Amino acid sequence: MLGLMQDWPLLCHKIIDSAARQHGNREIVSRSVEGPIVRTTYRDLRQRALKVAQKLEREGYALGDRIATMAWNSARHLEAWFGIMGMGGVYHTLNPRLFPEQIAWIMNHAEDRAVFVDLTFLPLVEKLAPAVKSLKKVIVLTDAAHMPQTSLANAVPYEEWLAEADGDFAWKTFDENTAAGMCYTSGTTGNPKGVLYSHRSNVIHAMMAAMPDAMGISSRDVILPVVPMFHANAWGLGQSAPMIGAKLVMPGGKMDGASIYELLDTEKVTFTAAVPTVWLMLLQYLEETGKPLTYLKKVVIGGSACPRAMTKKFQDNYDVEVIHAWGMTEMSPLGSLCTMKPEYAGLTGDARLDIQQKQGYAPFGVEMKVTDDNDNELPWDGKTFGRLKVRGPAVAKAYYGGAGKDQFDEEGWFDTGDVAHIDPNGYMQITDRAKDVIKSGGEWISTIDLENLAVGHPDIAEAAVIGVSHPKWDERPLLVVVRKPGREPSREDILAYMEGKVAKWWMPDDVAFVPEIPHTATGKIQKTALREQFRDYRLPTA
Amino acid sequence: MLGLMQDWPLLCHKIIDSAARQHGNREIVSRSVEGPIVRTTYRDLRQRALKVAQKLEREGYALGDRIATMAWNSARHLEAWFGIMGMGGVYHTLNPRLFPEQIAWIMNHAEDRAVFVDLTFLPLVEKLAPAVKSLKKVIVLTDAAHMPQTSLANAVPYEEWLAEADGDFAWKTFDENTAAGMCYTSGTTGNPKGVLYSHRSNVIHAMMAAMPDAMGISSRDVILPVVPMFHANAWGLGQSAPMIGAKLVMPGGKMDGASIYELLDTEKVTFTAAVPTVWLMLLQYLEETGKPLTYLKKVVIGGSACPRAMTKKFQDNYDVEVIHAWGMTEMSPLGSLCTMKPEYAGLTGDARLDIQQKQGYAPFGVEMKVTDDNDNELPWDGKTFGRLKVRGPAVAKAYYGGAGKDQFDEEGWFDTGDVAHIDPNGYMQITDRAKDVIKSGGEWISTIDLENLAVGHPDIAEAAVIGVSHPKWDERPLLVVVRKPGREPSREDILAYMEGKVAKWWMPDDVAFVPEIPHTATGKIQKTALREQFRDYRLPTA
Repeated sequence: MLGLMQDWPLLCHKIIDSAARQHGNREIVSRSVEGPIVRTTYRDLRQRALKVAQKLEREGYALGDRIATMAWNSARHLEAWFGIMGMGGVYHTLNPRLFPEQIAWIMNHAEDRAVFVDLTFLPLVEKLAPAVKSLKKVIVLTDAAHMPQTSLANAVPYEEWLAEADGDFAWKTFDENTAAGMCYTSGTTGNPKGVLYSHRSNVIHAMMAAMPDAMGISSRDVILPVVPMFHANAWGLGQSAPMIGAKLVMPGGKMDGASIYELLDTEKVTFTAAVPTVWLMLLQYLEETGKPLTYLKKVVIGGSACPRAMTKKFQDNYDVEVIHAWGMTEMSPLGSLCTMKPEYAGLTGDARLDIQQKQGYAPFGVEMKVTDDNDNELPWDGKTFGRLKVRGPAVAKAYYGGAGKDQFDEEGWFDTGDVAHIDPNGYMQITDRAKDVIKSGGEWISTIDLENLAVGHPDIAEAAVIGVSHPKWDERPLLVVVRKPGREPSREDILAYMEGKVAKWWMPDDVAFVPEIPHTATGKIQKTALREQFRDYRLPTA
Repeated sequence: MLGLMQDWPLLCHKIIDSAARQHGNREIVSRSVEGPIVRTTYRDLRQRALKVAQKLEREGYALGDRIATMAWNSARHLEAWFGIMGMGGVYHTLNPRLFPEQIAWIMNHAEDRAVFVDLTFLPLVEKLAPAVKSLKKVIVLTDAAHMPQTSLANAVPYEEWLAEADGDFAWKTFDENTAAGMCYTSGTTGNPKGVLYSHRSNVIHAMMAAMPDAMGISSRDVILPVVPMFHANAWGLGQSAPMIGAKLVMPGGKMDGASIYELLDTEKVTFTAAVPTVWLMLLQYLEETGKPLTYLKKVVIGGSACPRAMTKKFQDNYDVEVIHAWGMTEMSPLGSLCTMKPEYAGLTGDARLDIQQKQGYAPFGVEMKVTDDNDNELPWDGKTFGRLKVRGPAVAKAYYGGAGKDQFDEEGWFDTGDVAHIDPNGYMQITDRAKDVIKSGGEWISTIDLENLAVGHPDIAEAAVIGVSHPKWDERPLLVVVRKPGREPSREDILAYMEGKVAKWWMPDDVAFVPEIPHTATGKIQKTALREQFRDYRLPTA
């Protein structure tokens, strides 16, 4: 017997409808690519999104068409999202930091038919467009006055294109499982893989993200998503903020400390989110200038592990609460947030920081477990680590086109590729990537733990740990080190520094000094390249 | 094109699974009907819910079976809910305050096959059971030691019944639109009408209810739902609290000031919810004893309009934030909550109380409009009032068995039967019931506004306003008054008191004095009876 409740599909346009109706005058403030800070409201943004939808439909785009965006966070980018989705299309966020060949590969794989592009990235699109056969139109997010000369025959300035519509358009309706958005993950190996979000998953994720124990955001918050919309949906804020009617502050392309600070201060931002690198720049700026964070209350830090010193600085020096979080493009992206359960809510000082080193716990809507290589579930004891697997309504069940099938099992679990442990209270901590973890005599050694320890040495600029083959133990850890300029720590210095701080059998068997460590386009250590470089390395213990 | 996100149906058992896994040690504290205060945890509650499901299945109950509960708020009642739902059954909450004939009618209409009943209500079930043919089993929520003599052949003590199961049971899975719960509304006229909740609507509603701008509850809250589980799902708290992992405090059958205070204080309750009557008793108790509310932070007040003086007392004298709310059984039940948007967040004193007299705004997931009798939408100007209509994923689309079809239109709007206005910021205020509003010369007069005004007169104990036929204006208001003992206000006194406080054309045409005003079983003024009583009343103006 079915219930008798309304058939009210979870469609993304209902988010912007609700924002316009209940919070119509709330501002969206954007640092424009052209320069000035510009302001609009949810009411106007919805009206312009309707025009986007109307124009796209008139030009022949239809349900299921992938329409790319390559843009900074701005009101224009957001209205493009809602317009594309409301017409039944699929917004496909492109990461401009990838190599042009990689972007072209992604666009061809997705068969993008059009792209909304910021002025900043027009040269990039000019370069790769000839290689993307499906691409029929380039809509440049500016007006005619700022429209540059371009080699692209099919490029139009957004404002003039939009002005041809009157917005007299009714959102399309369709099954809530219809595709709404798309984002490719760029692993360190292999081709990028496409994640295809649905309207349902976006709406449910937006609710999960806003909950008090997740981001805990309300209509009274002023939200600055520094994390880009092309980086896993700005962690859902592009949907959560209008859902709850919070003022949005969009940073455009300027992520430096002074620019971010200006927005935090003049717009009275209470909530923000970004990767640690951005916060390093901000904290450095604050220290140099002695400026306070007057309005900011909470900062979500994810993308990579948040250093303890960063959490401490935000909390102790600026009275800003840090929420350490973890997620993946495949998870829309939120997987866990380190907010405090009552078990930990009373902690202060170092005890609190200890917990905040963890990536937190899975909210309702995310199921989580750790398993060994044979898929046996491991205990939640805060030390036994294994493969981290997740399920949920906002977690991918497959990649677009069918790549990466081995990451999904029959029970619906997605293997994140991360290695983690979970403590008795459900707090998860990432200890490594599965492909980087070192298997020594059947036991696992976390390379990240060793790296974090090594970079604590005052003479080390950067450190990476890889497994090197060993006749007896299969693999043993090799510590690869970049010394700080002018410093000359020895192998023995470094190992002595580490000794006693990790289990004896975790200690690296050797230290190798290099001038630099290879990185991916997104700034991560490229361990594949490093393993290749040290393929024939012979450990002294071998 | 469909998205590629996981098929993770929104099923209620996932709520208790998440609670047990992430918040397994969190307590559920209940004042038992037997007397003592008893404690369990989400982990144990889930285990017992599994046993309920297992036992029910073994005894032949199956998907779609309606299984009634007639019980106070307690851990046992909650585990019965999750057990029934997890087996695929439909929990059907019975309101013991209705007349026995009405309850029997409801049980027959729903075809309840079993009932979980508190000791308190066993005599009531004994009385009505013979009239309910579908009823095969009575499970008395106690143990053998407390099991009384009963005339019911098919009654068993819950604990012994449960002990026959080992809990080795896997929750059933099914479409998320499967019926999960049922509750009948008891209007002032006609037969009760059944609302049939689905798993999906319960889960979505639980998320909506917990959001920061709705109830704003977290795992660190201690939640006391005074509002009964048989009163529109305890306003969703039976699902929201385990979803977020908050400690629950269940009051059992004792709603008097001293009993509620004891729980608030000893269990350090931070959040509670009930109708104004309960809070009148509590506030009176606090005033008599001079006791403080040390831990309580927020109280949700709904069910009927919250008097301004009550809001003021909670906030000014006890530093407890009041959230005025409105909902209906048909809405799962939340429709609006009066939390503060930034437009109002800075208000204090009387200006804040003015806003808090409103029932608040519709969160994402509730669409709301007011219309005239011809279904034309009325402006949000804070004064034009009309029929209040709603849509959403947790709003009914029909009543069980098809009654009340005229309340639902083709566009999915449910006519609430309430009359309200909405202000430019989206804040709705109920001004009357549609069937009570007085239509005078084509314009509407709110009887509730007039009643609220009249009871402000120091000599009036209770007041009701009804429309009486008038040759020129169709209807004009008649004020029906019960005087306070020993007081003798005259017609002229009362009208003089009201004059200048409402529009001139709203002023009652006459005042009638009565010894008492008729009420429904749930304590509401029975205006149908009153209208019947004054059917032939001739106004002096007629």
